[in-house]
Amino acid sequence: MSIFRKSIKLLRKRNKKIGLPPGTLIYTGERKPEQEKVTIIDYNDKKIDIRELKELKINLKETEKEFVRWINITGLGQMEVIEELGRQFDLHPLLLEDVLNPDQRPKIENYGNFLFLILNIIWWDNKEKNIQSEQVSLILGKSYVMTFREFENDLFFPIVDRLKQAKGRIRKMEEDYLLYSLIDIIIDNYFVIIEKIGNKIDKIEEDLIDNPTINTLQEIHSLRREVITLRKSIWPSRSVINSLQREEAFIKDSTQIYLRDIYDHIIQIIDNFENFRDIISSLLDIYLSSVSNKMNEVMKVLTIISTTFIPISFLAGFYGMNFTHMPELSSLYGYPILISIMIIIALIMLMYFKRRRWI
Amino acid sequence: MSIFRKSIKLLRKRNKKIGLPPGTLIYTGERKPEQEKVTIIDYNDKKIDIRELKELKINLKETEKEFVRWINITGLGQMEVIEELGRQFDLHPLLLEDVLNPDQRPKIENYGNFLFLILNIIWWDNKEKNIQSEQVSLILGKSYVMTFREFENDLFFPIVDRLKQAKGRIRKMEEDYLLYSLIDIIIDNYFVIIEKIGNKIDKIEEDLIDNPTINTLQEIHSLRREVITLRKSIWPSRSVINSLQREEAFIKDSTQIYLRDIYDHIIQIIDNFENFRDIISSLLDIYLSSVSNKMNEVMKVLTIISTTFIPISFLAGFYGMNFTHMPELSSLYGYPILISIMIIIALIMLMYFKRRRWI
Amino acid sequence: MSIFRKSIKLLRKRNKKIGLPPGTLIYTGERKPEQEKVTIIDYNDKKIDIRELKELKINLKETEKEFVRWINITGLGQMEVIEELGRQFDLHPLLLEDVLNPDQRPKIENYGNFLFLILNIIWWDNKEKNIQSEQVSLILGKSYVMTFREFENDLFFPIVDRLKQAKGRIRKMEEDYLLYSLIDIIIDNYFVIIEKIGNKIDKIEEDLIDNPTINTLQEIHSLRREVITLRKSIWPSRSVINSLQREEAFIKDSTQIYLRDIYDHIIQIIDNFENFRDIISSLLDIYLSSVSNKMNEVMKVLTIISTTFIPISFLAGFYGMNFTHMPELSSLYGYPILISIMIIIALIMLMYFKRRRWI
Amino acid sequence: MSIFRKSIKLLRKRNKKIGLPPGTLIYTGERKPEQEKVTIIDYNDKKIDIRELKELKINLKETEKEFVRWINITGLGQMEVIEELGRQFDLHPLLLEDVLNPDQRPKIENYGNFLFLILNIIWWDNKEKNIQSEQVSLILGKSYVMTFREFENDLFFPIVDRLKQAKGRIRKMEEDYLLYSLIDIIIDNYFVIIEKIGNKIDKIEEDLIDNPTINTLQEIHSLRREVITLRKSIWPSRSVINSLQREEAFIKDSTQIYLRDIYDHIIQIIDNFENFRDIISSLLDIYLSSVSNKMNEVMKVLTIISTTFIPISFLAGFYGMNFTHMPELSSLYGYPILISIMIIIALIMLMYFKRRRWI
Amino acid sequence: MSIFRKSIKLLRKRNKKIGLPPGTLIYTGERKPEQEKVTIIDYNDKKIDIRELKELKINLKETEKEFVRWINITGLGQMEVIEELGRQFDLHPLLLEDVLNPDQRPKIENYGNFLFLILNIIWWDNKEKNIQSEQVSLILGKSYVMTFREFENDLFFPIVDRLKQAKGRIRKMEEDYLLYSLIDIIIDNYFVIIEKIGNKIDKIEEDLIDNPTINTLQEIHSLRREVITLRKSIWPSRSVINSLQREEAFIKDSTQIYLRDIYDHIIQIIDNFENFRDIISSLLDIYLSSVSNKMNEVMKVLTIISTTFIPISFLAGFYGMNFTHMPELSSLYGYPILISIMIIIALIMLMYFKRRRWI
Repeated sequence: MSIFRKSIKLLRKRNKKIGLPPGTLIYTGERKPEQEKVTIIDYNDKKIDIRELKELKINLKETEKEFVRWINITGLGQMEVIEELGRQFDLHPLLLEDVLNPDQRPKIENYGNFLFLILNIIWWDNKEKNIQSEQVSLILGKSYVMTFREFENDLFFPIVDRLKQAKGRIRKMEEDYLLYSLIDIIIDNYFVIIEKIGNKIDKIEEDLIDNPTINTLQEIHSLRREVITLRKSIWPSRSVINSLQREEAFIKDSTQIYLRDIYDHIIQIIDNFENFRDIISSLLDIYLSSVSNKMNEVMKVLTIISTTFIPISFLAGFYGMNFTHMPELSSLYGYPILISIMIIIALIMLMYFKRRRWI
Repeated sequence: MSIFRKSIKLLRKRNKKIGLPPGTLIYTGERKPEQEKVTIIDYNDKKIDIRELKELKINLKETEKEFVRWINITGLGQMEVIEELGRQFDLHPLLLEDVLNPDQRPKIENYGNFLFLILNIIWWDNKEKNIQSEQVSLILGKSYVMTFREFENDLFFPIVDRLKQAKGRIRKMEEDYLLYSLIDIIIDNYFVIIEKIGNKIDKIEEDLIDNPTINTLQEIHSLRREVITLRKSIWPSRSVINSLQREEAFIKDSTQIYLRDIYDHIIQIIDNFENFRDIISSLLDIYLSSVSNKMNEVMKVLTIISTTFIPISFLAGFYGMNFTHMPELSSLYGYPILISIMIIIALIMLMYFKRRRWI
Repeated sequence: MSIFRKSIKLLRKRNKKIGLPPGTLIYTGERKPEQEKVTIIDYNDKKIDIRELKELKINLKETEKEFVRWINITGLGQMEVIEELGRQFDLHPLLLEDVLNPDQRPKIENYGNFLFLILNIIWWDNKEKNIQSEQVSLILGKSYVMTFREFENDLFFPIVDRLKQAKGRIRKMEEDYLLYSLIDIIIDNYFVIIEKIGNKIDKIEEDLIDNPTINTLQEIHSLRREVITLRKSIWPSRSVINSLQREEAFIKDSTQIYLRDIYDHIIQIIDNFENFRDIISSLLDIYLSSVSNKMNEVMKVLTIISTTFIPISFLAGFYGMNFTHMPELSSLYGYPILISIMIIIALIMLMYFKRRRWI
Repeated sequence: MSIFRKSIKLLRKRNKKIGLPPGTLIYTGERKPEQEKVTIIDYNDKKIDIRELKELKINLKETEKEFVRWINITGLGQMEVIEELGRQFDLHPLLLEDVLNPDQRPKIENYGNFLFLILNIIWWDNKEKNIQSEQVSLILGKSYVMTFREFENDLFFPIVDRLKQAKGRIRKMEEDYLLYSLIDIIIDNYFVIIEKIGNKIDKIEEDLIDNPTINTLQEIHSLRREVITLRKSIWPSRSVINSLQREEAFIKDSTQIYLRDIYDHIIQIIDNFENFRDIISSLLDIYLSSVSNKMNEVMKVLTIISTTFIPISFLAGFYGMNFTHMPELSSLYGYPILISIMIIIALIMLMYFKRRRWI
Repeated sequence: MSIFRKSIKLLRKRNKKIGLPPGTLIYTGERKPEQEKVTIIDYNDKKIDIRELKELKINLKETEKEFVRWINITGLGQMEVIEELGRQFDLHPLLLEDVLNPDQRPKIENYGNFLFLILNIIWWDNKEKNIQSEQVSLILGKSYVMTFREFENDLFFPIVDRLKQAKGRIRKMEEDYLLYSLIDIIIDNYFVIIEKIGNKIDKIEEDLIDNPTINTLQEIHSLRREVITLRKSIWPSRSVINSLQREEAFIKDSTQIYLRDIYDHIIQIIDNFENFRDIISSLLDIYLSSVSNKMNEVMKVLTIISTTFIPISFLAGFYGMNFTHMPELSSLYGYPILISIMIIIALIMLMYFKRRRWI
């Protein structure tokens, strides 16, 4: 299912909620919600502890001193977990509503004691050979990070791995660096998409030169719609990261430079999408031109053959008439003379076409 | 009647007023104005009182203490009610003029002791299968909200219902939350429209692939005009809500977060309309391309059949000539040789077309 | 004469002045300048006095106390009146040059003791069935308003009438309200133009569906050029009114709300012009598409008839050959069998066209 | 040579300088540089002295008290004059480089003791019937104005004339008014160009209606390229004048109002160019549409004649067959009946075309 | 390889890094990395010392007093050199990552004790006849400048030469002037590209007039893609130079004016690219129009010849019918009368085409 059609489908679900009081918690995602799974990772420079939450009533807010806690929730089907988290961390009902309703715009909100971010993950599904999107909600509080995802997949696996093996500086840094690492991996996936779109454009360009068909046209159109829809999800991320940089209460100085790096990446991604738009609309022009060109070729062939034969066919018909008194018919040289005339006419026609560069 | 044509019709009515002094009260809506109906809803945490206003001369401004009063006026035909309200609540004549003249741009004005808002309600009429628009004027004063609507329908019914049944937090909050709830339901209706337009685009895309006709073209054009006209009514709403958030004298802190939520929704709606514009203009390009394509197909068929038969038809005509001296005609093998030549010519033509990928 | 051609004509006159010192007073309007006529209206709450100025040397600057004076000059042919006014009211030569050279951009200038405004009046000429434009210059001083117009017509008549009959609040208010009333009537005339353009678009749309001709194309183009040229004259009016609102030395608080109303109107007008641009460019696309469509139809008819008859015509020609040895010709069933074959070929062709949805 | 091609040619010359140290003085203009000529005009209210500089070593900086000095340099071929002036007036090498390299963008630079301006003169060459451009550099110092021009022509002649004859207020004002007068005459020349372009558009429109050819297309394209290139040279002039107005150390209050007037003119010129762009792209659409239209007409004629004759030609061929047993042929009424059938078929075809509005 | 395809290829390499911790140093350039080469140039007013670095462990940070040191690194294949430099000059791992990953956006970053700049070098490869791009990273510290380049070529040779021969003022100025000189030569190379693109446009225009083919279309498209991709690399350079001008801690006053000069150049380059975009999209329109035009020509020839011969061919066929009773056939004058009729019909057709201006 294309990104565009998915967003319409999400709207249909969303619109069923119209009239309900704000803050009513219903998951409006497109797929059957998955079983919720809550993973808790506590770590510091020396130790790391990864476990899955089995029982709900544990107090999640209190961590051991000097630990960073990452609470990762995947699957948004059961309301109890979300509601319990909302109670423990004092999350506003509207925030929880945003978590549960995909197709939100990327945004950042400062709730005083924590930051709330919504971002879109766009990744390339190697199995289905198309672009998948998913909403991820992130909460950055004092010494904890919470992430809400619709589905479980291995997107965040490199982070978990780096945490386990203490690769890079992640274990030495605090919760803001964890947030940075998560956002970094989300943004990096856009580059994969850009590469894929770049490849598609390359392929379409080759098709346009070789043999443009109505299929090529449909590919151009669906690519264009995809680029339009993806731009929608990346543009606001820019101002989200920009605002995040200015949240000095939550982001330490040492992490600032990393956010600047992400910001550079987003600008690069947006640049690429703008270029894609221009190039795709140029592709369409070429398609149109090359269809015109082909029609022109077809017309020329028709015209050359038709107009060469029409005069001589007329002559043949002329001397097929049954008038009693047609002196040419009985003349001995009538036949060879006519053949010569026909050949001359045909040659004149061909020379005319040659001069007009049709052949 | 389309949104565009309606707005022209409203202009025609409006232009009849040119030259009259400003503040002259005449209803310039498109339909026959309905009988006015004034509903008054007083409520607080514990009690709620809903009644219809029968007599005009009652003092509407004074409410019992601790009550929020919602005055809902539907139908703008009789000037007396509007004028009486203007007198009691000290409403400026230009304000009343705006209430009575639909096709205003959404706006917000601070009159010191109350806020005046104009918004467009856009809803999907399930009976007539098209988009309907209506102007709603809202006044937010100290402990009262006033709403003026052209027609009576069940748009605000969910709010009345929530008030009656004390669903959600509406009865516990004050008049600014009531205003928020009203705006929320107005904005939510745009999502229904977006869904409908998304469906239409889907349908047109299928038509374009299957069998584009001149009808498809007209559907694309009317969709485009609709999207252009709807953008006009939603764009200014953005800055209205933005300004509303900054009216701290009227909006309590607890309601701010809800207005932020509405603001997010408006941005999302605008994003969608921008995408629609791009996609619709892409649809038109595809229409043009696919018409070109079809013409190309038609041309090919014509050219293949014509140019295959033209040379052999010429030969048939040639040997239909009545020259006395045509040795081939009396030759025993003339006929079968000619048939072979004709078949060879036809085969050469077909091979040529095959090599040019026409067949 | 179209608005566009008129502006080129004005340029031609203007360019003859190049090289003359700035401030040289020559009227560069397009039509023969009319005889100047100066009307003076003094009014206050109780009295009103309307007279035409016969002699030049009267001191116009001094009014009776408590009176508002409106000096309306129509016809800009004689320099003496303009120069005398310039002397009496201390008007800068460049200001007078602007008054005399139409095709100025709308602007506002604060000269310390008075405000100088230039606006474009656009009105619908019912006789000539086209759009007319005219430059009006307004000066707002302490207790006087001066208006300069190229031609005499009844545009300001409703204001004079309201003054005479003390309709509305105009007689109770001061000179800034008079200025507002004049601007209001100028801006209101744009709505008439918008209505007319809306009607034209409606008409063109019907033509496009029924029977698009080369005329329709020319109408679209001239409409587009008109909308482009009109946008040019209304856009700057927006910032003029915006600046006017901030001229607190000249505009009293009570008039501010009226100017806000005008500002809303201008925004609405600009919105409409933007929509028109989009819709008109959409019309052109439709025109192109519908021409393509028609050509496609024509091609189909040609192709169906040609390709159905070409094979059977070939057969007819084939058996018109005069070979001595053609056994089919003398066969008893040759003729009916050939007829059957021809019918079968024709039917196969028609079925093929049916399957391709050409018929 | 068109403006566009000229700017490419200038680039070629410029690129030969790459790698040389900045400040290397070489004239990179397109034409053979003219002999330099330095004219010095000293004037005040009472006296004026015009002379040509013969010897270089004279101290040009010192003027008699109370005099304004205008140094006009035309022809930039000999470096000595430029270098000597640079020494005397302490001009930065980069400034001199800008003077010598045409195709600079209009700009203003404050060097502390003088202002440096670069503007483009665009004028209509009546002999060659095309647009000419030239770079002019202006320096405004205390009581002197310096102007550098590539070629000698009569553009500044009206100013010299006004100075000589003390027309207008130029002799009474100071050096900033002289600068204003020079800029004013430069900007005024743009209006001539706008008039010429307006005329061209008019002519092309007429051609489009009468008989569009491939020439019309080339005219549209070259006009478009010209408008694009001219926009490039006028846009930055806007901010130059805007900055100039804020240079209060060099521009007296009395001259401010004149600069405001120039600024208005530039805005008007830019408006015109924007309109031209829109109108020209509209012209191209019309060209395309009208070519489509003509092709449609051609197709109709072909189709009407072909399809009317194809069926009856078939019938003629049919009864030209040589079957021995064709009963119709020997029937007495066969011939007249066939003629009637042919006429009926032709009439049916024509009625069909009539109903489809093809004829 | 085109600029666009190269950037996709770079992405492919880049995406292999996803999931690695930030700051992991891998060279992701497109070509096989060259052997690194470190050149050190120490100079002041009197002395200059140029040498190649052989051993890594030398302390590069300490220079003799009063010397400016330029460290030029070409070839980014071996990590040790980069890492050693990073250690000695305290460069952040993210900075080194940027140096090693080409396809960065131009940017400037202030690291407190040094400035870090990334720029794109675009140059015309005379051998391969296409545009080459390369990323250059520049570091400006106290009395040193460091430059990182992917490949070794002679781009910076003129600077080295000027340093050696003490041409211009470069030896007298400090490290900020060296940085300026390097940037100046980078930016100057864009003008060469603009010249080349200008030439290409010229060539395409000639082709369009003479004989547009499908090749011309592909040239237009590839030119457009090139211009789109180049714009991406030059646009951000503008704000880089703008920011650089405001870095007063690193840029002395005397160098400011030179940076202003570079800024002017960038604006000029951007102007040129904007013009190119407009002109190229205009070229495409012309291509389409001229294909339409040619098709129209072809159609006319077909139509003229077909429709002239169709009626007279019908007549010939008509009198080829074998009806026994066709009185015309045996009439003595039948034959010459028919010939006359045929000639008259042909003349009428030709006159009709003449009147419609087809011939």
